[in-house]
Amino acid sequence: MVKKSRIQKIFSYCDPIPDAIIVKNGSEPYVDKMFFYTTGLVNGLFEGCASVLFPDGSYHLIVSSLEADIARNVSQNVSVYGTTQEFYTILRNIISDSSTIGLAYNAISHTDFLSFSKQLDNVTLQDVSNACTSARMIKDAEEIALIHKACGIADRVMTKIPDLIRKDMTETELSAEIDYHLQRYGAKAPAFETISSFGGNTALPHYSHGDKRLKNGDFIVCDFGACYKMYNSDITRTFVYGSASTQQKQIHEIVHTAQKKGIEIIKDGMLAKDVHQQVFDIIETTEYAGRFIHSTGHSLGINVHDGGVGLQSQCSIPLRPGMVLTVEPGVYIPEVGGVRIEDDILVDPSGCTVLTKSPHQLIEI
Amino acid sequence: MVKKSRIQKIFSYCDPIPDAIIVKNGSEPYVDKMFFYTTGLVNGLFEGCASVLFPDGSYHLIVSSLEADIARNVSQNVSVYGTTQEFYTILRNIISDSSTIGLAYNAISHTDFLSFSKQLDNVTLQDVSNACTSARMIKDAEEIALIHKACGIADRVMTKIPDLIRKDMTETELSAEIDYHLQRYGAKAPAFETISSFGGNTALPHYSHGDKRLKNGDFIVCDFGACYKMYNSDITRTFVYGSASTQQKQIHEIVHTAQKKGIEIIKDGMLAKDVHQQVFDIIETTEYAGRFIHSTGHSLGINVHDGGVGLQSQCSIPLRPGMVLTVEPGVYIPEVGGVRIEDDILVDPSGCTVLTKSPHQLIEI
Repeated sequence: MVKKSRIQKIFSYCDPIPDAIIVKNGSEPYVDKMFFYTTGLVNGLFEGCASVLFPDGSYHLIVSSLEADIARNVSQNVSVYGTTQEFYTILRNIISDSSTIGLAYNAISHTDFLSFSKQLDNVTLQDVSNACTSARMIKDAEEIALIHKACGIADRVMTKIPDLIRKDMTETELSAEIDYHLQRYGAKAPAFETISSFGGNTALPHYSHGDKRLKNGDFIVCDFGACYKMYNSDITRTFVYGSASTQQKQIHEIVHTAQKKGIEIIKDGMLAKDVHQQVFDIIETTEYAGRFIHSTGHSLGINVHDGGVGLQSQCSIPLRPGMVLTVEPGVYIPEVGGVRIEDDILVDPSGCTVLTKSPHQLIEI
Repeated sequence: MVKKSRIQKIFSYCDPIPDAIIVKNGSEPYVDKMFFYTTGLVNGLFEGCASVLFPDGSYHLIVSSLEADIARNVSQNVSVYGTTQEFYTILRNIISDSSTIGLAYNAISHTDFLSFSKQLDNVTLQDVSNACTSARMIKDAEEIALIHKACGIADRVMTKIPDLIRKDMTETELSAEIDYHLQRYGAKAPAFETISSFGGNTALPHYSHGDKRLKNGDFIVCDFGACYKMYNSDITRTFVYGSASTQQKQIHEIVHTAQKKGIEIIKDGMLAKDVHQQVFDIIETTEYAGRFIHSTGHSLGINVHDGGVGLQSQCSIPLRPGMVLTVEPGVYIPEVGGVRIEDDILVDPSGCTVLTKSPHQLIEI
């Protein structure tokens, strides 16, 4: 029933409302999470498969034989195709009463778009990217419960980090420990490639891990999440191996102050960009001006970067209860290192609830 | 220098040859591995970034500030953008002498295509999907070395499976052990979501893992790979927990015979579909006719399903030295279970070299 309301919600954001929406997966990694959002499926690859959605909340799956049994676990409306021609024959039959078809142009390849244009020549295609994104901005109760669970798993691992650190270990060895514990504690997989960077590498926000060995005095940035039944958490803490220097403590304190401010000011109706500006301004008034080089946060859900809302200077969307966002300012000093602190929050009517609970203070390991 | 020859190879497959090719990443998961293939980058996310390639093998990177330092490690030709408008201003400047631009239509979203069409209004856009795929079909020495390394890591973990199995463990607990050991042995990450399925779930080729607990007499299908410096392996073995039944031994023997046949017949010039047909026919002549429900194999490389060649009935491409493929027949009996055996092979002038070395016999754990 939840899936029915999700499908109806997507159509409610469409203008005009199409007769049907096709969610079409390409090959990995070009698989649209909307396929899983609207079906509730949590297993299978479903490459090349499609879900056809209707305004009444019903849907029909077109899947390859590889996925047929998994698909039948969630729906009776399953058709199995072998060749591409069979796929389109089935599809044309399912949408035979439809003259306008929605496609999320941002989630299908241009090749697939050309293919639809050619194969469905009696219908009008319509971009429903924004409707899909808008529908997913506000999470329903089931989604929030799954994200909450994913946050709990990540928290449990983050709390264990001091026990996982060993003398001379490499970044990759730490990421192996993190991923292992994420899965041991219930994650199906890490939410994304775990970041476990040491020393100078912590100054690179998107560097994940490599052969670098831990040295005394290094910053350690741990940025990871759990993927639980398709939903993700995303949490960051920064540690110091050995005793933190005065500068390390100072940077951490500034980032922590900025991050607390972000969480404190988030509330229903506030514009996303205003949250970013206030967090940004805290860092800009310190000697680390210019060292906070990314946005303050992003929506989180069935995708790690779930689209829609970003706590960044170009996003004028007002925050609303039910949105789930990360709050993750950082300061990065090339060659020296960086600090980032990140929590996941749920906007609620009175402000926000922080879903991740790991302690924020600078831990010296 | 390797990257220069790769870029030149891509242009050599283009007809006509465009003045430049733009490789444009969207947001995760819509990131084109071609970006890494042509730059040699093995770290960073590079969402929204682009690599502009020229026929002489040179390239220019347009990256966000988040990735600037990582990008500068591999190239001097790096421009940093902030806003979308800055991205296009930089891009227009880089391609100012170009009137025809190649884009891989199968690797960019339709939204990105529309954006290019609008922003680059004085150029002719051309689909180079096939050229990109063709260039990557034949691996160069560096790629083969990385795949070989990835195979060695996966082999080491597969050999350890009997030690990782514990009484009453869940599928997810086994996948956690597998992923942990992959990373401990040098993988940056698992190549894909590890499949560690038990009992009836082994009959679902794309089911990965869940809460099911191991029971005496269960088939155990382990299908996983290592990702090493962006390159992947992909290996499958099937075990039995406890003593194998006569039927289990028989199914395993049939799949093993079919798989050996596939490896035996692969040679320079053979059509991909003919390999599949001969492997398929072995299973079809047994009582398990109709139970081999997928292709015999796929190309492997920087993507797990690397595109291009498939050992399947619709692929008439002749195999050539330098191609790397999986050979992975299976038999699946709903509710009962399935067997799949998979190796990675390199086509060479005299047949093929098997890159994965784990023993094939049915191991009872």
